[in-house]
Amino acid sequence: MNPGNEKMIKISQAIRRGSKAYLHRQYKVILLVMVVIAAFVYILDVIQHGGIPYVSASFMLGTVASLLAGYVSMDAATITNVRVAQAARESKEKPLVVAYLGGLVLGLMVVSMSLAGVAGMFFLYWWLNGWSGVEKIPTLVMGFGFGASLAALFAQLGGGIYTKAADVGADLVGKVEAGIPEDDPRNPAVIADNVGDNVGDCAGRGADLFESISAENIGSMIIGAALYLLTKNLYFIFFPLVARATGIIGTLVGSLFVKPREGEMPVSAMRRALIAAVITTAALFYFVTSWFGPGHEYLYLASLLGMAAALIIELAIEYYTEIHGPVLDIVRSTETGPATTILSGLSVGMEAPAIPVISVLAALGASYYLGGIYGQINGIPPHFSGIYGTVAATIGMLSLTGIILAMDGYGPIADNASGIIEMSGIEEEVGSEVKDVLDAAGNTTKSLAKGFAMGSAAMASLLLFQAYVDVVRVENFNLMQPVTLIGLISGAILPFFFSSRAIRAVGRTAWEMIKEVRRQFREIPGILEGKNEPDYAKCVDISTKAAQKEMIVPSLVSLIAPIAVGFLLGPVALGGFQIGVTAAGIMLAFLMNTGGAAWDNAKKYIERSGKKGTEEHKASVIGDTVGDPLKDTAGPSLHVLLKLVNNVSIVMGSAILLYSLYLLG
Amino acid sequence: MNPGNEKMIKISQAIRRGSKAYLHRQYKVILLVMVVIAAFVYILDVIQHGGIPYVSASFMLGTVASLLAGYVSMDAATITNVRVAQAARESKEKPLVVAYLGGLVLGLMVVSMSLAGVAGMFFLYWWLNGWSGVEKIPTLVMGFGFGASLAALFAQLGGGIYTKAADVGADLVGKVEAGIPEDDPRNPAVIADNVGDNVGDCAGRGADLFESISAENIGSMIIGAALYLLTKNLYFIFFPLVARATGIIGTLVGSLFVKPREGEMPVSAMRRALIAAVITTAALFYFVTSWFGPGHEYLYLASLLGMAAALIIELAIEYYTEIHGPVLDIVRSTETGPATTILSGLSVGMEAPAIPVISVLAALGASYYLGGIYGQINGIPPHFSGIYGTVAATIGMLSLTGIILAMDGYGPIADNASGIIEMSGIEEEVGSEVKDVLDAAGNTTKSLAKGFAMGSAAMASLLLFQAYVDVVRVENFNLMQPVTLIGLISGAILPFFFSSRAIRAVGRTAWEMIKEVRRQFREIPGILEGKNEPDYAKCVDISTKAAQKEMIVPSLVSLIAPIAVGFLLGPVALGGFQIGVTAAGIMLAFLMNTGGAAWDNAKKYIERSGKKGTEEHKASVIGDTVGDPLKDTAGPSLHVLLKLVNNVSIVMGSAILLYSLYLLG
Repeated sequence: MNPGNEKMIKISQAIRRGSKAYLHRQYKVILLVMVVIAAFVYILDVIQHGGIPYVSASFMLGTVASLLAGYVSMDAATITNVRVAQAARESKEKPLVVAYLGGLVLGLMVVSMSLAGVAGMFFLYWWLNGWSGVEKIPTLVMGFGFGASLAALFAQLGGGIYTKAADVGADLVGKVEAGIPEDDPRNPAVIADNVGDNVGDCAGRGADLFESISAENIGSMIIGAALYLLTKNLYFIFFPLVARATGIIGTLVGSLFVKPREGEMPVSAMRRALIAAVITTAALFYFVTSWFGPGHEYLYLASLLGMAAALIIELAIEYYTEIHGPVLDIVRSTETGPATTILSGLSVGMEAPAIPVISVLAALGASYYLGGIYGQINGIPPHFSGIYGTVAATIGMLSLTGIILAMDGYGPIADNASGIIEMSGIEEEVGSEVKDVLDAAGNTTKSLAKGFAMGSAAMASLLLFQAYVDVVRVENFNLMQPVTLIGLISGAILPFFFSSRAIRAVGRTAWEMIKEVRRQFREIPGILEGKNEPDYAKCVDISTKAAQKEMIVPSLVSLIAPIAVGFLLGPVALGGFQIGVTAAGIMLAFLMNTGGAAWDNAKKYIERSGKKGTEEHKASVIGDTVGDPLKDTAGPSLHVLLKLVNNVSIVMGSAILLYSLYLLG
Repeated sequence: MNPGNEKMIKISQAIRRGSKAYLHRQYKVILLVMVVIAAFVYILDVIQHGGIPYVSASFMLGTVASLLAGYVSMDAATITNVRVAQAARESKEKPLVVAYLGGLVLGLMVVSMSLAGVAGMFFLYWWLNGWSGVEKIPTLVMGFGFGASLAALFAQLGGGIYTKAADVGADLVGKVEAGIPEDDPRNPAVIADNVGDNVGDCAGRGADLFESISAENIGSMIIGAALYLLTKNLYFIFFPLVARATGIIGTLVGSLFVKPREGEMPVSAMRRALIAAVITTAALFYFVTSWFGPGHEYLYLASLLGMAAALIIELAIEYYTEIHGPVLDIVRSTETGPATTILSGLSVGMEAPAIPVISVLAALGASYYLGGIYGQINGIPPHFSGIYGTVAATIGMLSLTGIILAMDGYGPIADNASGIIEMSGIEEEVGSEVKDVLDAAGNTTKSLAKGFAMGSAAMASLLLFQAYVDVVRVENFNLMQPVTLIGLISGAILPFFFSSRAIRAVGRTAWEMIKEVRRQFREIPGILEGKNEPDYAKCVDISTKAAQKEMIVPSLVSLIAPIAVGFLLGPVALGGFQIGVTAAGIMLAFLMNTGGAAWDNAKKYIERSGKKGTEEHKASVIGDTVGDPLKDTAGPSLHVLLKLVNNVSIVMGSAILLYSLYLLG
């Protein structure tokens, strides 16, 4: 495809170089940490598997597979962005299709790499065991989920810090102090800002959902293994893998529908694709679940409930973040200044978790009930089959990952294309209408993907807790026991502490960026007159380094806290800890993601109403700036935190169990 | 004592009238709601106690006793304020003593009314039962705690909405629009603002802690009754009452030390009083616990742990809100504008719960362990005696209520005195130094009291959960069961939803106030020239009415949610629900109270540095305005919410149990 004129190519290559530079440095850090942790995990392998590195190898493969999926997707995104800009010169509808196809790489890479990794490890280990003891194999693969969550934490937190620091730095000095427009090539931080779109929204979210589906697959197989022991039906173990493959088909079928009619908004075309994917996946699931034999329709219904919960979450997020009552409340509150703007956004954010969380809980409760009926028909104890009902619901929800990620991947590509259009001076040729339409769709799809990521993190995390229960073989996590309560409430501290650090990290990194941009304006003559090119690479480098540095403390705390709770207070407290992290984390994530998006859209609404430069607009910009690190750094990183805590607990679970048995004599 | 000159008396009477007008209207609403709920509760009495109104009568007495304690304390406060202003004309040290004595009325009223109410009901019901079946009596008194929590919810939420709406309204139109100083008599909302200090900080916090100690006393007696059945030792039931009386002695001894040395800061004098009270109470507790017989020193240690946790919480709150690292971080972030100011305050608030919550959990865990040792010595099953260990810790912490509330009561009295000094034009005579010293101490004691109220709400709430367990006789709240998890996570939604509504209520009420002040400036000629008096009463009335209206939805939701969860999902889910509310609520309360106070003090620091009117100062004012409804409305109301949910659950527990047994056939 045509990559456009020379200037466009030059800019896109700068973005591409910056993105790669970031990933290279980040990957070095991650691989280093991976090796250190793998060494610790290998101790477990020595104790439990006679030195065969089942857990440590799957751990490393999980990390590497996640990094690879992120790398390829970002590579595709940075190739596509300039082609979307060129397509915008040629037609109104074509840029959408090109951008969507770029995003589709993300969706397909993430889902298929996860499936290949989990299934590959599973069959490899099974074969190494001489095709015997299949029920023990899923537990050996669990390192894969842990590895994926490590990669995701760094990708999402580091990417989130990077993207917001670059954004705030570019805006504060460029727009506010120097008075040049957004995406202006005279701004030294402008390339870093565009790189940020890729590393945060593309690689970050991809790693987040890679982790969700990998951990969920493995967790489901661990739970399935318990049912296999009761029924000798292997399909309880294989169903998660088959379902994942089904989701890929649904994504492909849905993608066929991304053909905008003339004059149609891109969001409508993508919504059509989503609906087509949901219908296809739902229909295929009927056949996929039919292999469960008599009463299979109850498990089918459970999986549909999971999909329904995902759709309700999307509708709720849309209500709170698009132009409806809540955003208009924020718009109105800008009339009385920044303080009331912040307060009304906080109020919207605090209300937002209610509907999504209730819909997740309702899906869990109802699918547990349906699973129980399936169990009655097949003579399986109700608790086991009930839990498998919740597995079916979670799998149902996560079967939509591919199409949602494809739509999400559209966002940063469209943002980049828009930046390239502006920087290469072809804005008038393209026309502001096409550019605005491209932009608007990206915001919607990103916020839909974030809502989906949150909902699926909640489902996956509760499923992983049940897998943890299977691993540590504790029969009871009784809230009457102080040890459970202490674990649980101390778990609730972690998401707050983690968010505090993430927000502070953005502030500190942005400050570094501000100083650098100011320095360049001061020391490099003629930048503002466009006579001299600013040092883009230096800004990319500063953001990259600072992001790596700032993510160390929160990451370490998240890794060490569950291990400390487990060894000091035992496996029951650690179970409570996971639930505490999930309960508090999911509320905070919805609060921050939704509140942030609502502030953002309130600002955009005010700008569209032609009120740029008024006091109302200034207040709305302050709201948006407050919301940025909440919705793009702390919030999305919390999804990963939930699952990381579960995964660490599962991997360390058996060691903690042994240690606590040793203490008891 | 001398109430000062005519003008001072006139102003203080206007504040007193306004405060009484507010309380009268609020009490009407509360008494009406009380009668309606009592009618429902009486159904329980008919089912369970053959129509004898044990629960409904104690419920009504709990409400009325709380209201009475609030009324008398506020009466004392509004008599004292003008005398403090007059004392400031006479000496430097005297105003502190006068204001403290006014606050002491609050401390003593709350503690002794609660003790009299609980003990009185207990002995009355015991006598009515012919001095038999003592183990059943505590459960009959539990309505008292529910009544107290109803009164507290209205007092704290309504008072919080009132005080912040008046504050914001007075500031935004008076200071910002009309450019007149704070507490200027030309501002129509100035009396409402001073009334707000009394209804929020005095009556509101008093009702909050009245509820804590009442519910904790009754909960302890319910748990004690279970131990009485095992040991036939009545002291397990009586200890909470004896301990409460001991706390009163400690408060009185401590108060003897409120004699400032020449030139000493009031806070130092009060800190000396607090230390004296802690030492006295701790010493007396040795004798009081010695009646537990062999091994009593373990329960003594447990009670000391509770006191120690309270002191650690105070130190942590001081670290986060006085001029240390966190507040200086906020001060620095004002240099880059309001957005970074908000973000750094949020970051401070999110970090703040960690130390206080861990210290509460550590006290609970260690006291459970100590209680277990006591049980071993006396042949009591370890879980029972362990829980009694946590009871001893909670009682230890709450034994400091009297002295903390006396210090808290100092705050609004000093604020009012300062307002009267300003409005009556005796400012120069008094000197700004004395006035500033009065003010600063009030802020510190208020924030210490809030920290104590939060910590004790957490302790009381977990204790009430154990009492709930005794009432519904469920043996297991297993987190592996979806029903427990669903209850728990849906519980975590409530504090977020409630806070969202509370924040919005302040915004709406403040808006009413703003419109009224603007109207008066416009329609009453000569206000700003001081020729005509504004209509103070009208502003008081508007805030009063709006506060009553706005608290209806959040209050109803808090009452209905636990009942709905209990009847729809059963007693196990309701147990989880309480823990979810506690875990999420305590984090949010610490976040909002501490973050809000940190913003406030950052602003004060900037003002003291002589930076009034700079951009930094403007940013810090925005931070303070955002923090106000968080720290004075939503945060403190959450303490009450936690306990209200527990109390509703305990009162409805037996009905829910019967209903769920009926469903099971």
